[in-house]
Amino acid sequence: MTHPDATVNDGKQPRANDEVRTAPACTLVIFGAAGDLTKRLLMPALYNLASDGLLADGLKIVGVDHNDRTSEQWRDDLSQTMQSFTEDHTSEFHPDSIDPGHWGFIRERLTFTKGDFEAAETYRRLARDIGGNAIFYLAVSARFFGPVVDQLGAAGLLKEGEGAFRRVVIEKPFGTDLASARALNARILNQADESQVFRIDHFLGKETVQSILALRFANAMLEPIWNARHIDHVQITAAETIGVEQRGGFYEPTGALRDMVPNHLFQLLSMVAMEPPGSFDAEDIRNEKARILEAVRPATPDRAVRGQYAPGEEQGNAVRGYREEADVSADSRTETYAALTLTIDNPRWAGVPFYLRTGKRLTGRLTEIAVHFKPPSHGLFAGTALAPNVMHLHIDPDQGLSTQWNAKRPGPDMRLGAVTSSVRFGDFFAEAPSVGYETLIYDCMVGDPTLFQRADAIEAGWAAVDPLIQAWRDAPVETYAAGSDGPAGAEALLARDGRAWLPLAEV
Amino acid sequence: MTHPDATVNDGKQPRANDEVRTAPACTLVIFGAAGDLTKRLLMPALYNLASDGLLADGLKIVGVDHNDRTSEQWRDDLSQTMQSFTEDHTSEFHPDSIDPGHWGFIRERLTFTKGDFEAAETYRRLARDIGGNAIFYLAVSARFFGPVVDQLGAAGLLKEGEGAFRRVVIEKPFGTDLASARALNARILNQADESQVFRIDHFLGKETVQSILALRFANAMLEPIWNARHIDHVQITAAETIGVEQRGGFYEPTGALRDMVPNHLFQLLSMVAMEPPGSFDAEDIRNEKARILEAVRPATPDRAVRGQYAPGEEQGNAVRGYREEADVSADSRTETYAALTLTIDNPRWAGVPFYLRTGKRLTGRLTEIAVHFKPPSHGLFAGTALAPNVMHLHIDPDQGLSTQWNAKRPGPDMRLGAVTSSVRFGDFFAEAPSVGYETLIYDCMVGDPTLFQRADAIEAGWAAVDPLIQAWRDAPVETYAAGSDGPAGAEALLARDGRAWLPLAEV
Repeated sequence: MTHPDATVNDGKQPRANDEVRTAPACTLVIFGAAGDLTKRLLMPALYNLASDGLLADGLKIVGVDHNDRTSEQWRDDLSQTMQSFTEDHTSEFHPDSIDPGHWGFIRERLTFTKGDFEAAETYRRLARDIGGNAIFYLAVSARFFGPVVDQLGAAGLLKEGEGAFRRVVIEKPFGTDLASARALNARILNQADESQVFRIDHFLGKETVQSILALRFANAMLEPIWNARHIDHVQITAAETIGVEQRGGFYEPTGALRDMVPNHLFQLLSMVAMEPPGSFDAEDIRNEKARILEAVRPATPDRAVRGQYAPGEEQGNAVRGYREEADVSADSRTETYAALTLTIDNPRWAGVPFYLRTGKRLTGRLTEIAVHFKPPSHGLFAGTALAPNVMHLHIDPDQGLSTQWNAKRPGPDMRLGAVTSSVRFGDFFAEAPSVGYETLIYDCMVGDPTLFQRADAIEAGWAAVDPLIQAWRDAPVETYAAGSDGPAGAEALLARDGRAWLPLAEV
Repeated sequence: MTHPDATVNDGKQPRANDEVRTAPACTLVIFGAAGDLTKRLLMPALYNLASDGLLADGLKIVGVDHNDRTSEQWRDDLSQTMQSFTEDHTSEFHPDSIDPGHWGFIRERLTFTKGDFEAAETYRRLARDIGGNAIFYLAVSARFFGPVVDQLGAAGLLKEGEGAFRRVVIEKPFGTDLASARALNARILNQADESQVFRIDHFLGKETVQSILALRFANAMLEPIWNARHIDHVQITAAETIGVEQRGGFYEPTGALRDMVPNHLFQLLSMVAMEPPGSFDAEDIRNEKARILEAVRPATPDRAVRGQYAPGEEQGNAVRGYREEADVSADSRTETYAALTLTIDNPRWAGVPFYLRTGKRLTGRLTEIAVHFKPPSHGLFAGTALAPNVMHLHIDPDQGLSTQWNAKRPGPDMRLGAVTSSVRFGDFFAEAPSVGYETLIYDCMVGDPTLFQRADAIEAGWAAVDPLIQAWRDAPVETYAAGSDGPAGAEALLARDGRAWLPLAEV
């Protein structure tokens, strides 16, 4: 994250390209060149960066995968996929057209090299071809993270010398529990320095996630009330309406908890809960993020609930249950929903529960943080059912902010009703086309690790959920109807604290 | 104000009529029965109260004025005026149609009696006819306030006995400076107890003015930051685009300061600045209002500016200057604009300037309070031009709330831009038809003095502006072009504090 800069009151004015420097030239080596991540996200993100003029002329992109193809075939494949996005409205990336100049900038830099990810020969060839700055992007299955990094190290590809950088980008899952995460970190850090490792949580590429920092620390109205004295509890929600789709094979050994909680939801939790960093320097921010996650008391099974969707109805259509999905076991106990109560052991959050929930096939699609404030401290409205102030930080589908207030109802007596003030950031800012990876790729090129996960934060996240992972290993799973709000147990989880989940709908 | 009652989250549901009790039967005596206030505001308000079923069957309405007419003529006149509102879109009251049943309820209760306001005979007749509860509504020129109250007292009409109430309603101006206000209060209180005197400031009949109390005290997010530690300054604005219209005769000896500041603007100031009252009981609220006005340090001429509109252009049309208006002297020094800086000597507001401005023929129509917060106390954004958080309480033309926040602009670096979250209360509550007097008339009937002005608060208001009234008596007046933001001196007033007025436009 570069030095903060504020511009006052100038509404819609988009950022001029020349205000952000072009990234340094480098070779971007993509392991998993034929995979979905490369096609659907990396190429669109590179295209958007090229459109913004942020990529150096000296950029090279080397694709590595185990299947046979020529560089020209790879270019053609990707060109075709890029073109198909113009007609694919389910894609995060769906431009009206592909600009031939900007895509040409990327296309002409693409070369493909066939290689087994576990074969030393692959890396010897890379070592011959690559000089200077290089980024190794592991767009591969997690089981290859260790082997690829070992091979990179063995081939000397991670040695930084004479001002050139060598970086490794990996994307979650970073392990499947605390022990495996520790082992993976240790294995990676055996070959590379922490400063060379860029662990991506793509939630951090979303504007609003980064925007939480700006909102909390650039608005004087919030800091004084952002603590246990004024906040009753926080709800963090990432709800999907879709089911497991084609990803049953991945999902079966993973489940909602591993897939979402220690990574994505904990990103939101750390942004909303961390102490103000000393500066916007990467290590100041990452220190505070690690500190807050280390202060999360390990979750306990009696304050957590999991569920699996049964057949039901999603927006009027009958949909099958999880156990009937492709590549899913007919007696699967994998959870597609997880909810848990967390507490944070520090002065700011003493006694404030953080309720987290995530699930598939729910009644609404919604990612948000809802901060519930306490009732007023004076007794003026004592004895009345006063709606609490709730501040919603909207992350998906719309980015913005809503606050629920009590206002006087029209009429001769003092009767209150809830009103909601809100703003969509898109109404104020020209939104740059983004698939969420642009900032991450750019930051990796310029060497800004702010938005990447440090080993200590990763391990702190796993440590906080490890008791659940262990307890749920052989436990039964509650079911919920597809298209519902989730399992009954999740309601009970908050009800015993005298609280309730908010509806799964944007306010 | 009746006991507060809150209803949670039920959006648009209007108040059921049976939740508010019917006012007790009484005789409403209107002095000035043929006047504008009676026609334009009192009758519509009574009609709206009748529509809501809030008036007792035993209500009688006696009109008093010095011209000849029969009761039937008065009824016909008022019926015609009521009907004309359905086609008058400049009127605050413009229903689609007049319901014959509800208007009939009022009409059949109207009787007219001719009488000189200063003749004892008028009052002897009233005393013969009136028994039980009575409200004497002085819809007359201020010069009659003293004489009418004297006569009411002399005729024994203000004696409350055997459970019957006798109340006097007067409407500003309550004096023309501190000395005359004190004299008027003394004269009135010589005939009636303070509890019998209902001084109307019609700003208090506006929903949003009352709503400020609800907003401040029913929302836990605000109380912790509503003080000098977090607030930089407050701007209170009542701006009109119209000129003096047909009211030159009244306006010439009055001017913007007397017309608006110690009354209307001070109502807004007290709502936004007062300490939380111990309860919603009338005297608790009125004690706090008097206390805050008494804590206002008397204004000083060097921190105040006045102006008079010169010819100019209002929304594309050339308009004349104040001195060319009807019934205005060609060398008038009456101000049509006033701005002043006030400070409040109490711990909550130590060092926080309150900037007040009001004027005619300005560039926009806007009544609002804008609370400007200080920059964040930590240094994260030090050195950047951070837009302050500003909370706007909108009173006119739309009632609602807007807050200006800093948010992150989309893009790879941490750049901020201002966004505004907002709510119009009308989008959440069914707005009862109102001319602003309904609540006031109803409250007077039920004996709730909360929204009426107590003598001490009136005098405190005049005391705060008396230095300006004295200093401006023979001073020249700056001019400003009609349709502008006001005189240059008003900008300078804030500029020397390093601040600036907000634009005269709703955000």
